[in-house]
Amino acid sequence: MTDISSPASAPAAFGGATHLECTRCGTRYESETLQRLSPCCEKPLYPRYDLAAIGARLRREDLAGRSADLWRYAELLPVRNPAHAVRLGEGWTPMIETPRLATRLGIGRCWVKDEGQNPTASFKARGLCMAISRAAELGIREVAIPSAGNAGSATAAYAAAAGMAAHVVVPRDTPHPIIQEMLALGADVELFDGLITDCAARVGEGVREHGWFDLSTLKEPYRVEGKKTMGYEVAEQLGWTLPDVIIYPTGGGTGLVGMWKAFDEMEAMGWIGSARPRMISVQAAGCAPIVRAFEEGTEYAEPWRDAHTYASGLRVPRAVGDFLILDAVRRSGGSALAVSDEEMREWTPIVGRDTGIFCAPEGAATAVAAARLRESGAIGPDDSVVLFNTGSGLKYVI
Amino acid sequence: MTDISSPASAPAAFGGATHLECTRCGTRYESETLQRLSPCCEKPLYPRYDLAAIGARLRREDLAGRSADLWRYAELLPVRNPAHAVRLGEGWTPMIETPRLATRLGIGRCWVKDEGQNPTASFKARGLCMAISRAAELGIREVAIPSAGNAGSATAAYAAAAGMAAHVVVPRDTPHPIIQEMLALGADVELFDGLITDCAARVGEGVREHGWFDLSTLKEPYRVEGKKTMGYEVAEQLGWTLPDVIIYPTGGGTGLVGMWKAFDEMEAMGWIGSARPRMISVQAAGCAPIVRAFEEGTEYAEPWRDAHTYASGLRVPRAVGDFLILDAVRRSGGSALAVSDEEMREWTPIVGRDTGIFCAPEGAATAVAAARLRESGAIGPDDSVVLFNTGSGLKYVI
Ligand SMILES: Cc1ncc(COP(=O)(O)O)c(C=O)c1O
Ligand SMILES: Cc1ncc(COP(=O)(O)O)c(C=O)c1O
Repeated sequence: MTDISSPASAPAAFGGATHLECTRCGTRYESETLQRLSPCCEKPLYPRYDLAAIGARLRREDLAGRSADLWRYAELLPVRNPAHAVRLGEGWTPMIETPRLATRLGIGRCWVKDEGQNPTASFKARGLCMAISRAAELGIREVAIPSAGNAGSATAAYAAAAGMAAHVVVPRDTPHPIIQEMLALGADVELFDGLITDCAARVGEGVREHGWFDLSTLKEPYRVEGKKTMGYEVAEQLGWTLPDVIIYPTGGGTGLVGMWKAFDEMEAMGWIGSARPRMISVQAAGCAPIVRAFEEGTEYAEPWRDAHTYASGLRVPRAVGDFLILDAVRRSGGSALAVSDEEMREWTPIVGRDTGIFCAPEGAATAVAAARLRESGAIGPDDSVVLFNTGSGLKYVI
Repeated sequence: MTDISSPASAPAAFGGATHLECTRCGTRYESETLQRLSPCCEKPLYPRYDLAAIGARLRREDLAGRSADLWRYAELLPVRNPAHAVRLGEGWTPMIETPRLATRLGIGRCWVKDEGQNPTASFKARGLCMAISRAAELGIREVAIPSAGNAGSATAAYAAAAGMAAHVVVPRDTPHPIIQEMLALGADVELFDGLITDCAARVGEGVREHGWFDLSTLKEPYRVEGKKTMGYEVAEQLGWTLPDVIIYPTGGGTGLVGMWKAFDEMEAMGWIGSARPRMISVQAAGCAPIVRAFEEGTEYAEPWRDAHTYASGLRVPRAVGDFLILDAVRRSGGSALAVSDEEMREWTPIVGRDTGIFCAPEGAATAVAAARLRESGAIGPDDSVVLFNTGSGLKYVI
């Protein structure tokens, strides 16, 4: 047998969190046993790190030769032992500059962060990679998730790679390619009549009856750690500067709050300054609880009734991290807006022709939002804008 | 506007070829005007580089900090001006070690090179990225291609990114997701009753009537240069060693011959030694011209009649580079074998469950081949094997 050494890249030192912290009241919890929502407030827990110590020994320049996946940030991730990292190529997706789209939108510079090039063709790979790696490290062998679709595919993939059993409950009208993908990856898939919130209740039953571990967004502390790497990547790929504006399609909102957490961590380590991009949350007109709460000025968002949109990732009527999303959007000087399904359909081929990227409807929504905000003046002609294409258009073909 | 510098990675020096060479008789041609098949033999032309000079100034270790795409090998690529490189994140796909699949197959170590994580979800991005970048550099504004499907999507994407018009002719029964993708990317798509060879004739008409530039496999000299980067990546990702066996699903065969070319280039630069993997060419039982020629010991392959297989990338009845494929397979001590559509269907979920990768049928074919060759003893229990999953299973969902 040929002697094969490991891939040639500067090794990252795996670290792990020092503790978990309630995002509402700040109470600390230890991080070496399984945790779900905070016992104090029933709100999400965030892993915290010894950022002063990490910042003192790790310079941002040290990252340059590392692996082209999210594990390049291993010191800032919760997995302690490299052997537990389940790896399929997640993260370090391309940041594609799109000059013709910038011209169309009338803005200074525009990039599309193409998350469709992740394993299972969506950014959901990041969060589930991290949650499943850490769950494996803590001894879990069987996981379950309610999903709008893409999170289910990612769960199926990482559970398969980790040799775990996965139970996925999705709405019956989840896009067909996503269902086929989950089945090919060996997940136990249940099609449920209802929305993701109803699927969550169904998973709750399995948790009680069979002891499955529940990977629902922000109900366990580690998915957000995978997603925050999008924030690290934006900064690193733009040469340790941040754009003026980031536009993000928001369902459960972990992507947006994860990036916000990453910016704070990077500042604490001295990697970036205190300036932040304006964070724009885009939702579908048929399901826009965050937009409504933003406009009404409330801290939490009321659940949306009769949610409907073909952008299945945005069909999330209630987000457990609602207050975190609204806080990040407001503190950044950003905003929240809703776009229609017709606009997403109209803009998918416009983005395609201008950029060469076949985007998901959720990705198209960010371009619609950019056009709308440019028109209202909320985005200026000299602004630099990063649009997140959170998935591949292939997942939505009917 | 925030001042955004370029991505932080060690810059590659763009070079370009010194000349083109007929793959049959070695006649040299200059490379600064557009070329198609060699005027001398009507066979493919290969770009050649000053490998002694490049090897003298570029050590393989110098690549470590470079961009995570195929442009990390810029010195060995035909594009001269970085401004002409059309970039969507192509190449540097993950090399995923798959221990459970290795156990199932009864082999020492097994990796899947997951080409489904390329732009447009197949390895075709590599070749079309290079051909279109170089065509743009030489002044082309309008391209055409006959395709089994995936090459058409990649053409649509890179032409869009380059601001070129693209005409794609594909068989009417090309998988639906691929057709949707090409349309969303703005290509002029013609569905043709027939096989890729019939589509090629149709493109020929457009070339004569409208002056389109024809990007057919190996009929222009630069697609192979994009695909050869798979060979560079295998070596670099395995720490500058090569596996004992590489299994590749073969249609037009550019992937396989491109890797073979890369190995020779790396040896000429002193990056690897003279050992080579056994190159295994897998085809579909319903279209196996290379397998038949391999078994009959002929230098060229007769066209296959009534080609049929749902692995549309393998539905290529005649390959202009047939003699190059057969030569590489034979000189490497490898072999060629055909697998059935039923076996590909059966193995897709097996690979999915064992690895977390939702593979294309062409990718599943490599696992079938590995099992078959292990059984016959052609692959031994200690062999290290790289399987190429050339595309995402999402492109074949019906
Ligand atoms: C493609 C896509 N975009 C966006 C979202 C919403 O992401 P988040 O839950 O992080 O707000 C989802 C969620 O399913 C999705 O699948
Ligand atoms: C997914 C896939 N695999 C393999 C092939 C065959 O590749 P090559 O033409 O390099 O032999 C194709 C060609 O269309 C393809 O689309």
